[in-house]
Amino acid sequence: MSADRQSANLRGLLGAEPVVATAGVGLFADALRDQALTVIEAEWQPPMEGTEGDLARVLADPRRAQANALAAQRMTASTATLVDVVQAKDAVGLERGTFLHAGPPLEWERASGPMRGALIGAVLFEGLAETAEDAEEQLAAGVFELEPCHHRDAVGPMAGVISPSMWLYELRDEVHDNMSWCSLNEGLGKVLRYGAYNDEVITRLHWMTDVLGPLLQQSVRSTGPFDITGILAQMLQMGDEGHNRNRAGSLMLLREMLPGLITAEGSSTDIAEAVRFSGANEHFFLNLGMPACKLATMAAHGIPGSTIVTTMARNGTDFGIRVSGTGEQWFTGPANTPEGLFLGDYGPKDANPDIGDSAITETGGIGGFAMAAAPAIVKFVGGDVPFALQATQRMYEITETEHPMFQVPILEFRGTPTGIDVTKVVRTGILPQINTGMAGAVAGTGQVGAGLVTPPEACFPAALAALAAAVDD
Amino acid sequence: MSADRQSANLRGLLGAEPVVATAGVGLFADALRDQALTVIEAEWQPPMEGTEGDLARVLADPRRAQANALAAQRMTASTATLVDVVQAKDAVGLERGTFLHAGPPLEWERASGPMRGALIGAVLFEGLAETAEDAEEQLAAGVFELEPCHHRDAVGPMAGVISPSMWLYELRDEVHDNMSWCSLNEGLGKVLRYGAYNDEVITRLHWMTDVLGPLLQQSVRSTGPFDITGILAQMLQMGDEGHNRNRAGSLMLLREMLPGLITAEGSSTDIAEAVRFSGANEHFFLNLGMPACKLATMAAHGIPGSTIVTTMARNGTDFGIRVSGTGEQWFTGPANTPEGLFLGDYGPKDANPDIGDSAITETGGIGGFAMAAAPAIVKFVGGDVPFALQATQRMYEITETEHPMFQVPILEFRGTPTGIDVTKVVRTGILPQINTGMAGAVAGTGQVGAGLVTPPEACFPAALAALAAAVDD
Repeated sequence: MSADRQSANLRGLLGAEPVVATAGVGLFADALRDQALTVIEAEWQPPMEGTEGDLARVLADPRRAQANALAAQRMTASTATLVDVVQAKDAVGLERGTFLHAGPPLEWERASGPMRGALIGAVLFEGLAETAEDAEEQLAAGVFELEPCHHRDAVGPMAGVISPSMWLYELRDEVHDNMSWCSLNEGLGKVLRYGAYNDEVITRLHWMTDVLGPLLQQSVRSTGPFDITGILAQMLQMGDEGHNRNRAGSLMLLREMLPGLITAEGSSTDIAEAVRFSGANEHFFLNLGMPACKLATMAAHGIPGSTIVTTMARNGTDFGIRVSGTGEQWFTGPANTPEGLFLGDYGPKDANPDIGDSAITETGGIGGFAMAAAPAIVKFVGGDVPFALQATQRMYEITETEHPMFQVPILEFRGTPTGIDVTKVVRTGILPQINTGMAGAVAGTGQVGAGLVTPPEACFPAALAALAAAVDD
Repeated sequence: MSADRQSANLRGLLGAEPVVATAGVGLFADALRDQALTVIEAEWQPPMEGTEGDLARVLADPRRAQANALAAQRMTASTATLVDVVQAKDAVGLERGTFLHAGPPLEWERASGPMRGALIGAVLFEGLAETAEDAEEQLAAGVFELEPCHHRDAVGPMAGVISPSMWLYELRDEVHDNMSWCSLNEGLGKVLRYGAYNDEVITRLHWMTDVLGPLLQQSVRSTGPFDITGILAQMLQMGDEGHNRNRAGSLMLLREMLPGLITAEGSSTDIAEAVRFSGANEHFFLNLGMPACKLATMAAHGIPGSTIVTTMARNGTDFGIRVSGTGEQWFTGPANTPEGLFLGDYGPKDANPDIGDSAITETGGIGGFAMAAAPAIVKFVGGDVPFALQATQRMYEITETEHPMFQVPILEFRGTPTGIDVTKVVRTGILPQINTGMAGAVAGTGQVGAGLVTPPEACFPAALAALAAAVDD
């Protein structure tokens, strides 16, 4: 460049209003804005603190690219069909006195209100105690076994408590020959999964066990299996995101199940009540979408070198993740409390920290990751429509692939962001976006609202450290 | 402004790259672009040719603003509940030998292929002819009466042929004490409304008359009335636009009707077949959404001075509109042929010009006007997602109001553009956007595709002239 030209450029630069581009901490940008300067903030952030060494080691792992591609391929190629409805004692061999729960492993002492409430209710429901006090004493004394649903390839929304007499949906992935299970949805309000355990709750659980389960089993056995993946793909084109909005999915499931329900052997009163109960529940489908996502993530699990997250689950105290390349190890941190919209007079102080296995939907590429497909959900979980669009857009930054079947019409049919990569989360600091219901913090309360939440940051550097330790294994 | 300042501004103007803003015909902009100049085209267009005088007269009508506000208020305050299912002879007093059809008045000689096919089929179905040739001869000889559905407050999709034995949905607007009717949906493919009339079509019509109609009547009478406006509002939040996409609406309607269907008196085979037939039809709801929109537009009709369109309907030859302030007069022009996507081997040369009363959905603020709520529809009617968003945005330019109940989540819950104003259409040249099915041009063919279409421009200056003539009436 000639000296003249250089000098002219410099004059141009000095003559124009200065514009400063900043990156990283907002302090610099704020200071400049206070001086009335124009600032362009780049979205870059440094990696999570202290992760540089592990990040370098894991990113240099020669297995990683292929392992993650394989994990993504398996996750998106999995299928889910509803093949049966079976009691937990038969489905997952659940022993009397053992209770499954949502999230990573947990002891009674550390359990939150809604988890305690759900366990008390399940003990009462199984007839292992006469009163709530009796149930609580036995639980505190360690009389019963507690075990994560995930350890039996099952998932449960909110408290996710499963006891041997409960009926479970049984789903099969024919491509990878896996099975997964989930409880039946109880509806909204005062329900066990939100920690309520009064007579109404226990009576409904008995009706579900004695009447609903057997009828659903007849329906599936006579007219199934039902293609759950197909419903998931369709519902994303009908304003659902599959976690907190399941309206279209529930209607499609109902259409599949009804003919078999109507013709089932049973009293016409029981059948009419089963149809009414199922039709009135806008979250009927959630308990099918969750095990479908569980099957997808199971298919991607256990690939050496893969940094793809295959479980995100919360027990109301801890948030835990598991990663494809690190086997059965949980990486946990304290669960955040969701922010969102509250029912009735409830407010933020009533909400329990994040709880439930339902974050398996986000792990599988739907739920919060598909919010752009479900803008109407902001009336239920909070936020606004631009936020819903941005949430999905932002998740592309931390995922391995785009789901070929789960398409978002408004993003011109782009596939949902699928397969959370631990290295991308640590490097960008962008945390997975989760939509969730909110349970009351006090045992027995039930649902208090719905909202938005992220995992605690701590899970990801911990998982990265384990991945780093496993390099060259 | 000082002379110095003026001179400095002028130098700035001359020193900078010139940018030209153009409006109206694109010729100027194109010529400038050919000379590598930057052009900003304003979307302004001159009013439709020769309308200046009428436009000035109508816009100056002191009744207009209030009349249109009242029309919009009535259109959006109307309700629609499904109160009964009744045969046409009883519902609208249809006499044997009289046939209702879609669109403005029409004689056999000017009828298109699908309209002729549907009329032939209806004559056969009513047992008024033994063969298609016989039916055609009688129709050509003027043996039967033909009358628009709209003249009996009814609507029919595509050919819209209604004969006395057919069952109709009966809807009521409680706010304005109006009633409207629509035929039952036959499903897709070879069906009467698309001009097919082979044995399969006639057999299905007999089954609908003997079995389906009476069962639906029992369902509505035992468990109705059903809130159709509520379903319309919900389906727009579930990816439907209510004209060519009715998936969520059909599922919600099914959920309402099923309990009454299941418990209806009748053979279990008949009931199972009625449930299967209804559940398999993704356009089941269209025949409820149409009369709901008819009720909305009826409420807005007949207000002196109002320039709001209260009917848009096509008979396969002519496109006709009626306007609130000009009573029962039709303003017609030759129907355009839709452009879109074709089934199987069909192509543009197979398509009949625009046909059907279903443009009542656009007249009532949904269908093409609500495409932004249903981006997935572009896979069915053509166009792309940005087009779907723009279609709705553009319709705000020619409408009086935003529907308070019909909200589009992706537009941050903005109400759909509702109440087409003739003066706005004439002044802007923007024509209403209609989504539609495409019938084969040859009688007997059936559906060949689905696409996008607009009314012929001619309807609107003609309506404006009548409005101008009615000023100071």
